[in-house]
This record gives sequence, C-alpha cells and structure tokens, in this order.
Amino acid sequence: MHIESIDAFSFAMPEIRDVGDGSQDACLIRVRAGGWTGWGECEAAPLPTIAALVCPMSHSACKPVSASVLGERLESPADIHRIAARVRANSLDLLQADHAFSGVEIALWDLLGRREGTPVWSLLGAREALPKTAYASCLFGDDPGQTYAKSRQARAHGYRAVKFGWGPYGRGAVAADRGQVQAARAGIGPDCLLLVDAGTVWEESVEDAALRLPALAEADATWLEEPFVGGATGAYQALARRAGTVSLAGGEGCHTVHQAAQLLAHGGVGYIQIDTGRIGGIAPARRVALLARTMGATYVNHTFTTQLALSASLQPYADAAGHALCEVPVEPSALALAMTRERLPLRDGLLTMPQGPGLGLSIHTEALRPYLVEAEITVGGRCLYRTPRWE
Amino acid sequence: MHIESIDAFSFAMPEIRDVGDGSQDACLIRVRAGGWTGWGECEAAPLPTIAALVCPMSHSACKPVSASVLGERLESPADIHRIAARVRANSLDLLQADHAFSGVEIALWDLLGRREGTPVWSLLGAREALPKTAYASCLFGDDPGQTYAKSRQARAHGYRAVKFGWGPYGRGAVAADRGQVQAARAGIGPDCLLLVDAGTVWEESVEDAALRLPALAEADATWLEEPFVGGATGAYQALARRAGTVSLAGGEGCHTVHQAAQLLAHGGVGYIQIDTGRIGGIAPARRVALLARTMGATYVNHTFTTQLALSASLQPYADAAGHALCEVPVEPSALALAMTRERLPLRDGLLTMPQGPGLGLSIHTEALRPYLVEAEITVGGRCLYRTPRWE
Repeated sequence: MHIESIDAFSFAMPEIRDVGDGSQDACLIRVRAGGWTGWGECEAAPLPTIAALVCPMSHSACKPVSASVLGERLESPADIHRIAARVRANSLDLLQADHAFSGVEIALWDLLGRREGTPVWSLLGAREALPKTAYASCLFGDDPGQTYAKSRQARAHGYRAVKFGWGPYGRGAVAADRGQVQAARAGIGPDCLLLVDAGTVWEESVEDAALRLPALAEADATWLEEPFVGGATGAYQALARRAGTVSLAGGEGCHTVHQAAQLLAHGGVGYIQIDTGRIGGIAPARRVALLARTMGATYVNHTFTTQLALSASLQPYADAAGHALCEVPVEPSALALAMTRERLPLRDGLLTMPQGPGLGLSIHTEALRPYLVEAEITVGGRCLYRTPRWE
Repeated sequence: MHIESIDAFSFAMPEIRDVGDGSQDACLIRVRAGGWTGWGECEAAPLPTIAALVCPMSHSACKPVSASVLGERLESPADIHRIAARVRANSLDLLQADHAFSGVEIALWDLLGRREGTPVWSLLGAREALPKTAYASCLFGDDPGQTYAKSRQARAHGYRAVKFGWGPYGRGAVAADRGQVQAARAGIGPDCLLLVDAGTVWEESVEDAALRLPALAEADATWLEEPFVGGATGAYQALARRAGTVSLAGGEGCHTVHQAAQLLAHGGVGYIQIDTGRIGGIAPARRVALLARTMGATYVNHTFTTQLALSASLQPYADAAGHALCEVPVEPSALALAMTRERLPLRDGLLTMPQGPGLGLSIHTEALRPYLVEAEITVGGRCLYRTPRWE
C-alpha cells in the first residue's frame, strides 16, 4: 500500500490558561493508506506544526514534512525507517519538522499495526508488554496544603509513585520548596516513590539547583527532573556529582536521538525521559530505550496529555523489564479525556499495555468534535491548509 | 522606549528549485520602537516561523514568540538579554521559536544600534571590527569540469579561500568525490585555502566519511564541514581522531548555545560555524565565539543568503583576531541581492565590516517588492496573521 493522505487537526480547550498543563490543546495526525487509518499525536504547538507539514519548499533540505511522506510505500517497519530518513534529509533545516513528523510516524505505526492485527510493540520486535508502575504526574499546588491534598488523593487512587512539578517550585525561597517537598512526602506516606520536576526553572545554574538537594534527599526523592534546560549537559553532570542519593532525570525536550545520547553520555542522568511526540516518533524513542540499557540508565516515557499519547509513549520500552516506571497524566483536560474511547487499564498502581492492534485505542470522534479548532493557511493566493472534515 | 510592533515578511523567488541554495526565499523581521526601526532575518522556513511568532498559546511554556517581546522595554543590551530569557522560558516547548526569535533578536540589535548611532559590534563590547578573510561559498558543480570553472572564477575574483559543498559530493563513489576535490584545488591554485562541505550527507557513518579523508588531505583541504548531522558528536569525535591534517567544521544547525558547546566539548571540531539566524540571534552567537576562544577552536560565521544576514553573522566575532575567516555567499539569488541597498566592501579577498549604526545596511524596499509573498493565517475564525503593508 501507499500513503494516500496526511491530515492534521488542531483541538483546544475553550480557554487556555497560563499554567504548565500541556493537555490544553492537541495536534492530532491522521494517516490513510490502503483502506487503513492510523492516528498519532504531536506533543507540539498545533499551528507551527501544521505549517511544517504544508509549507512551501525553501530549498532541497528545507521541504515540508508531508512532501517526504505522501505517496511513499508502507508495507513494513523498514518502510517507516526509510520514510523517517527521507524526512530528516529533506527537512534538515526546518526546525519544527521533528515535532511535526513525530505525530506522523506514530500514525504510521498505528496504521501498520492495525493492518497486521498486532500491537505496535510487537512490530518493534518486543515479545511481551510488561505492566509498568504508573507514577501520577501532578502539578505542585500553590502552597504545601494544596500539594498535600493532591498527594493524599494520588495515594488513595493506589499509585505507588507520585511526581510533583512546576507551579511555584524553584521560583521562590529554598525553604518554601522544602515545604512543598515535605508536604508531598507526608501525603503519599513512606512507601510511595516521590519524584520532583523542576521544569528547567534554574536554566543552567548548578548552585540554585544544589540548594534544593538536601530537602530532596531528606524526603527520599527518587529523582530531581529537569533542573536545567535539556542541552545544558555540563550543568547536569556537575549537579549529578553532588546529588548523592537523588538521581537526575531529563530528556523530554529531546527532538533527536543524538540529544538524548548526549544527555546520557555527558549529563550523568539516571533516568532518560522521552516524549515520542517530540523525538520523531516511536522508532527513535526505542533507539534511546535500547541505548539507555547499554548505558546503565533507566528509560521512562514523558506524557502529560492523552491516552493516545500515553500508549504511543509506552511502545518503545514495553519489554524493558528493569525500566518499570511510567508517567501517567492524572489531571488531563476535558479535551485530553475526550480523545479516545478507551483508557489503558490501571489497577493497584500498575498500568497494563493495550493488547489490541496498533496503539490499541480508538479516537472518539463525537466527543472530540466540540474542541476542534478550524484553521486556514493561504500563501501566495494558494490555500495550503484548511481543517479537513472531522468525521 | 517600548517595543511597539514585530512584523514578519516572507519573500521568495518565483520558482524554488530543488537544490541546496538557501537564498531562494527569506523570512524578514521588522521591529519598531520609539520611532526607530530594526531589521533581522531568520535563516528559516518562513511559514512555520511566522506561525511560531503568532500562534495561540498552548500552555505556559508554549507561547508564541511575539507574546514575550511586544511591549517590552528596550533601552540597552541588557534588555535584549532579558527579552531572550523570557522567550526561552515562555516558548520552551515551541521548537520553531529559536529560529523565529533569531530574526527578532537581530532586529532588536539593529534598532538599538541605530538609536545609539553605533554599530552592533560596538554595543556588544568590541573595540574594533577587524577585516576578515572572505571565503567564497559555492555549491559543487555537477561534474569536476563545472567545479573547476567555478573555482577559477572565485580565484579570479580575488578570494583567498574557497568552499565547495553539497551537489553530488558524498552521494556517489569515493573516486568521484576525489575528482571533485582535485578539480577544486586545481582551479584555485596552491596558495588558496580549500574548504569542503559534505552537508551532513553521511548522517553518522564515520566509515563513509573516513573514506574521503585521503583525497582531502592530498588536496590540502583546511576543513571537512558537516560530515554528519550536528548532534552526532560521537561520530564527529571519532572522525576527528582519524582526520590528520584536515580539521572538522560544523555547527550551522545549532539552535542553542548548548548544542554548540557540546560540539566543541565532545565533537572535536576545529571550526565552529554559527548561523545567527538560527541560534537565537547575535548575543548567543557571541557567547559561542567567546567559548570557542577558550576551547582552542576557531569561530566562523555561517551565511548563505543576504548581505543583511552576512552583517548580522559577523557582529559576534568582529573583534576576534585569530578567527579571521568568514563565509561570503557568492551565488546569491536575485532576491538575496535585492535585500539591501549596500554591499559589504570586499577587496582582495578581505571583507570589511560595516561601520554605520546597527547592522550598517538599509533594506531596499522597492527592489524587494516583486518577491513579497502574501500570506494569511486564520485560527478559530480569527485572523492571526496577514502580510503587513510593505512600504
């Protein structure tokens, strides 16, 4: 079969709030080939992503992503690798291409899995999909009281690991951050893993980050996530040397395998967190998962949005026994909840991978409809994009 | 003064050919503040770049670039640094933001320089702007005969250094590549520097690249540029160890200072090539230039388009005495030639920096008009972008 169409859809909550909740909008990709349909999600700003799919060619290494995908043969995983290499070469100078292709690539795997009647993880060569220990991914409350309440709630839902991040953490006094971390630990109790996400707040200041280490060690935090922007491997390495029992985690911003490899090789991270919706899709994420195994680090998904993104993010390390943690968004927007008809089974804090073909989930067309955002792009008098019919 | 407007304009040649010539279109930014106007150019696909300037907010760390710039105070270089930090934090998850902000940042420096009546390099703290040895940046011919003719021509124009790249190089037999390199050396004669640009053709295959080293050494090539994609620092390092008299050059794809730092620290490059139109503008490029000095590498601009981009690309290392090479596009499109009224003085292969305020060049409104590409973007029934009046 050959790839017949790539359609991009933008969805958004009626009001986008100025908070770290990345599930307030969504960029969904639909690919069609040989009578089959696959779905994938870009973890990206919808408009620039759509523009990267359809923009005019600038030169031979700056072409729209769609140009390297449409009409291509799709019969096996090798075709997906081949198409990805075409996109890399043809869109080398188009920065947003990595985010845009991520959703397309995921949709290609979903489509191929559906046709083969097999889950994506099986297409990737995994023999089994192991259950993962889900960690509840929450935003810090505005104060320790709110954080305590949230952590109690997460524990009550059976989670064995809870992450808090963003919000006021790292922006004020060191003592205030200690209060937040202590509240989180108090709420989840002593037997639950505690993870803390600084959301790059210290940019590359090792000292600012190091000031928070004692409170994190005291609260027995498993990791400190993203103290710095992803590329600041030198700062990561310097902090890792001082972090004692607290591991560093990072990598969600990686949009190439190379960036993840650098964080592993030169950043001293104990956990590498990859978003399949940014790094170019499922195959590059699996490459990082395999690399992490050889480098003694632990692979973890990064997902803060829909069940579709969650399923895609789990495929690359479904069979990685020692890599047992997975991020599960617990405060998704109504839009994110509306995306799929099914949810991944979560019992006693353990998440089970979907066993159905492809990503194992179906898009809930009717529930999503109210969130559809119509868009239109015209260049030089020619309409390059108009939201396709949603049906 | 406060920043009153950011306007983006897209220009393109009537026909865009599927070749490596990046000057076939242009994304120009105009910033206005306090009655002054500054201009900057993004080395980027115009449509996704415009989308990154104006898109709806996705969440607190995924905002359109304009939102962090419009209305901001602009009195001194410190304000530009502050605005850049705002953009980094507020557009952390918007990949295209680095390319989009690059043109804005350059325009801010141009504007500030015009108001102060001083060149940008002076605002950056440089006491002088040294002349640079221009290297003619050419595409390889389709065959050695064409390459020979091109290299003769470059030499006849007085260039003391010539670079050939892209085209068939690296895509066929090793012997064919040797023929191309020999033709280039034959054309320029023994006293001219020869530089070769592989345009990432071997992606990350060290062996493919190593096969070309003997011919490069034989032709006394100063550097082999971009044998691999920029992030593949491991491959760069491995090749550097085998490259003997041939230095490696790379870095044009860097869209953050961190990426350049990694290539310097872990890639073994002798020359770090930075495009101010991609890395976030002039200030981050200067940071790389200073870093290169401390690490024993040589800083070089990357510029393949207009005189405006060329002037911006020279500001960061205007005063760096040991860093004397600069790239000069010698086959610019008619559009690129139309961009400015003036050209940077080039005599006997030496390029002199502009001494006028800002970037020292003025936009040629009339000459550019025929290349203007009108565009319009509507999201959710609201027009987010319509090409501003060109006047």
